[in-house]
Amino acid sequence: MGSAMLATMTQRVLVIGADAAGMSAAHQALRTARANGRELRITALEASGHTSYSACGLPYWVAGEVAGGGDALVARTAEQHRAAGIDLRLHTRAVAADLGEQWVEALGPDGVERFAYDDLVVTTGARAIVPDWARDAGGGLLPGVGPVHNLDDGAAWLDRFATHEGPVAIVGGGYIGVEMAEAAVRRGFEATLITRRRVLRSLGEELSQRVAGGLRAAGVTVVEDGAVEGLELRDARVSGVAHGGGSAAARLVVLALGVRPATDFLEGQAPLTDSGALRPDGNGRVGDGLWAAGDCCDVRHRLSGEWAYLPLGTHATKHGRALGDSLAGGGLRFDGALGTTITRFAAGGVHLEISCTGLSPDQVTAAGGRALMTEGTTASGYLSEAEPIAIEVAADPGSRRLQAVRIVGGRGAGKRVDAAAAVLWAGGTVDDLAWMDLSYAPPFATAWEILQVAARRLAERL
Amino acid sequence: MGSAMLATMTQRVLVIGADAAGMSAAHQALRTARANGRELRITALEASGHTSYSACGLPYWVAGEVAGGGDALVARTAEQHRAAGIDLRLHTRAVAADLGEQWVEALGPDGVERFAYDDLVVTTGARAIVPDWARDAGGGLLPGVGPVHNLDDGAAWLDRFATHEGPVAIVGGGYIGVEMAEAAVRRGFEATLITRRRVLRSLGEELSQRVAGGLRAAGVTVVEDGAVEGLELRDARVSGVAHGGGSAAARLVVLALGVRPATDFLEGQAPLTDSGALRPDGNGRVGDGLWAAGDCCDVRHRLSGEWAYLPLGTHATKHGRALGDSLAGGGLRFDGALGTTITRFAAGGVHLEISCTGLSPDQVTAAGGRALMTEGTTASGYLSEAEPIAIEVAADPGSRRLQAVRIVGGRGAGKRVDAAAAVLWAGGTVDDLAWMDLSYAPPFATAWEILQVAARRLAERL
Repeated sequence: MGSAMLATMTQRVLVIGADAAGMSAAHQALRTARANGRELRITALEASGHTSYSACGLPYWVAGEVAGGGDALVARTAEQHRAAGIDLRLHTRAVAADLGEQWVEALGPDGVERFAYDDLVVTTGARAIVPDWARDAGGGLLPGVGPVHNLDDGAAWLDRFATHEGPVAIVGGGYIGVEMAEAAVRRGFEATLITRRRVLRSLGEELSQRVAGGLRAAGVTVVEDGAVEGLELRDARVSGVAHGGGSAAARLVVLALGVRPATDFLEGQAPLTDSGALRPDGNGRVGDGLWAAGDCCDVRHRLSGEWAYLPLGTHATKHGRALGDSLAGGGLRFDGALGTTITRFAAGGVHLEISCTGLSPDQVTAAGGRALMTEGTTASGYLSEAEPIAIEVAADPGSRRLQAVRIVGGRGAGKRVDAAAAVLWAGGTVDDLAWMDLSYAPPFATAWEILQVAARRLAERL
Repeated sequence: MGSAMLATMTQRVLVIGADAAGMSAAHQALRTARANGRELRITALEASGHTSYSACGLPYWVAGEVAGGGDALVARTAEQHRAAGIDLRLHTRAVAADLGEQWVEALGPDGVERFAYDDLVVTTGARAIVPDWARDAGGGLLPGVGPVHNLDDGAAWLDRFATHEGPVAIVGGGYIGVEMAEAAVRRGFEATLITRRRVLRSLGEELSQRVAGGLRAAGVTVVEDGAVEGLELRDARVSGVAHGGGSAAARLVVLALGVRPATDFLEGQAPLTDSGALRPDGNGRVGDGLWAAGDCCDVRHRLSGEWAYLPLGTHATKHGRALGDSLAGGGLRFDGALGTTITRFAAGGVHLEISCTGLSPDQVTAAGGRALMTEGTTASGYLSEAEPIAIEVAADPGSRRLQAVRIVGGRGAGKRVDAAAAVLWAGGTVDDLAWMDLSYAPPFATAWEILQVAARRLAERL
């Protein structure tokens, strides 16, 4: 709580960014304040016209999988936030701040307004990275070209997919790139995915190649080691993407090049990393009267103890909730991330589930650890439910502690990562994972669950 | 190792029962002996004509889901065991033993033979419970009536389902009962499931009713609190099952009443519980020169520390492997069971996945613990992948330690139990489960994974 505030006064909380982290924080702060008999007044500024929406759902919306349109992606509307007592201002963007004087200036529908606060909650999220080659001379995006980051982007892609012809090029081989490849194939487009290195590079080479193979089997052209040099234009529209290895025909270009913290208004005011991230502690506290959570922040990696930029909705909601509780006198903590992720590529007759937890196998082996790949099936081999699955497990030979698990496989493969994440969370060993009592029945697993076989095989080699 | 054996001699190991536990033990013993430079001679006696088959696969085989027939259920054939150097005798049943003199007598194709040993490994598994009302005057099973315990039973049911008319009555509401109800519906039979108490009683009343509701939605008549009084016969064939509440028409009757340890030949020789179970330690050791694992044994429940009879293939293979390693000088341990189970009922347009880990909610609340039910979806609600899921979580209020998780839900629900089992294995709290970094993407989970929401809701109420 800001030092200038007296205990008897109402605590003025200003939240910048009304999405997952900010609104989790706001609602939890109100709950905790109520429980603690504290009075809290929350103002929330949101640059867009939307609150609390599922950015992760955008590729599925674009693919046509979301009944009810973009509204269905909104977990809580502006009205719902206001009904809870939050003074929410939409279309209001923070443009300047003085953290010493404790105010933020924001540009809204009625011009610039100054907001004084006792506690500032920075939950501004991230901005999609847009390279210069994607822009026209005026700095705007070329027609048919755009990222997939917020609801407006999603609506634009839904419109492009409905009214434009392909082919589609997806630039970027991360999670969003793979998910947009799924969307493009499901929409019947010819698609090329161009990635600077490999598809889902953090999987390591072998598993990355499995995913690339799946994309290719579904008809996607995959260009690896493809440095995009620029877009080719014809009649003021994109006709192709020039990359190191040649050119990919494209009328539509998805920018899936990652994101950066949206913290410009804090420059020179708050401690930002070179990439613009804030670094709050487990309670969401950055400094006196300054709090932050979500995609504008680094998080602590629970295994390495190092800061990592892992912009994911799960961390945003958890860290936001801990922040809100702490702000109002509670003590909930976000105790770090494991790097757990999941996605899928399910289109064109292919169904691949992809998940990770822990360090990357490269990190583990660079530090003297051991990694091992195991192949098997998701169910007993005699049932049609059995799908191929490959699991890489990595551990430290000295402590035998589990350090990383990577999974690529068919239906039912992906969520297996959660059991491994639970072992990592507890600091368990490969032996724990190999021998613990996990569930088995023929439609769900083999008698030695394949995740446990993978751990056991590594355990035997440490 | 038997005390009579000198270190320089070949260690004579006699394995009684060549299924999951016995053969896991035998192969691991050979591996460990090789690594330790020990000489081991293994003889294995098997009463049936089959080795290492998946008993858990029988209901799916009977349902017609197993391509390749009963052989597909066999993980390792007699030839494969023999090729590994194991002297395997099929159709050879142990009938007498003298553990002091260290011999077992077995009746095989060529009569009774006596086998001397240094180490005796008892992995005889279990026998299906067959009530008197299922037998004819001569003590044999009535036609159309039988259990589902071994490959011969499976073949008999496959034949009955292919050549007989229904309706089918399934007596017993445990896992096998539910799985055979699935098989019967998939085969197009009218089916009645009769259970003494509730369907899958260990789920607790609310979740049990969800499963019963699923069975009924698929057209199965479910009779709860149904004490079977006898079979009704017409023309020397079954025509119905008389139970407390009336009578169920039935031409075929599945006996799914559970199993008992198959340890008759050890009576008066070895320390057996009242129900006939052996109680080996984590290394599989019962006493000097006497080892056991699998369905003829109780196992230690890791949470309660008490003995429990949990006849499951997972424990059999793990405990068997630990036994084999220990027998040959290694130290692998089976460190107890959590009571983790999974099954499904997927037929007649219904798909329910059912899983458990830990103590029963009744046990927890009886000991002053708290249990709470949470409902949600398996995926983000705006996607068609979202299926209803109900999760009951129980914990001890003092220590906040997680004690039980029960799950009933649609596709993707069941295997979630593994993350909870991993928390239980480590002795973690509901807070650990609520806040750890589990995987999220819209087709796989909600942003707060429902298992974590369930834990968090309970955590807030402790």
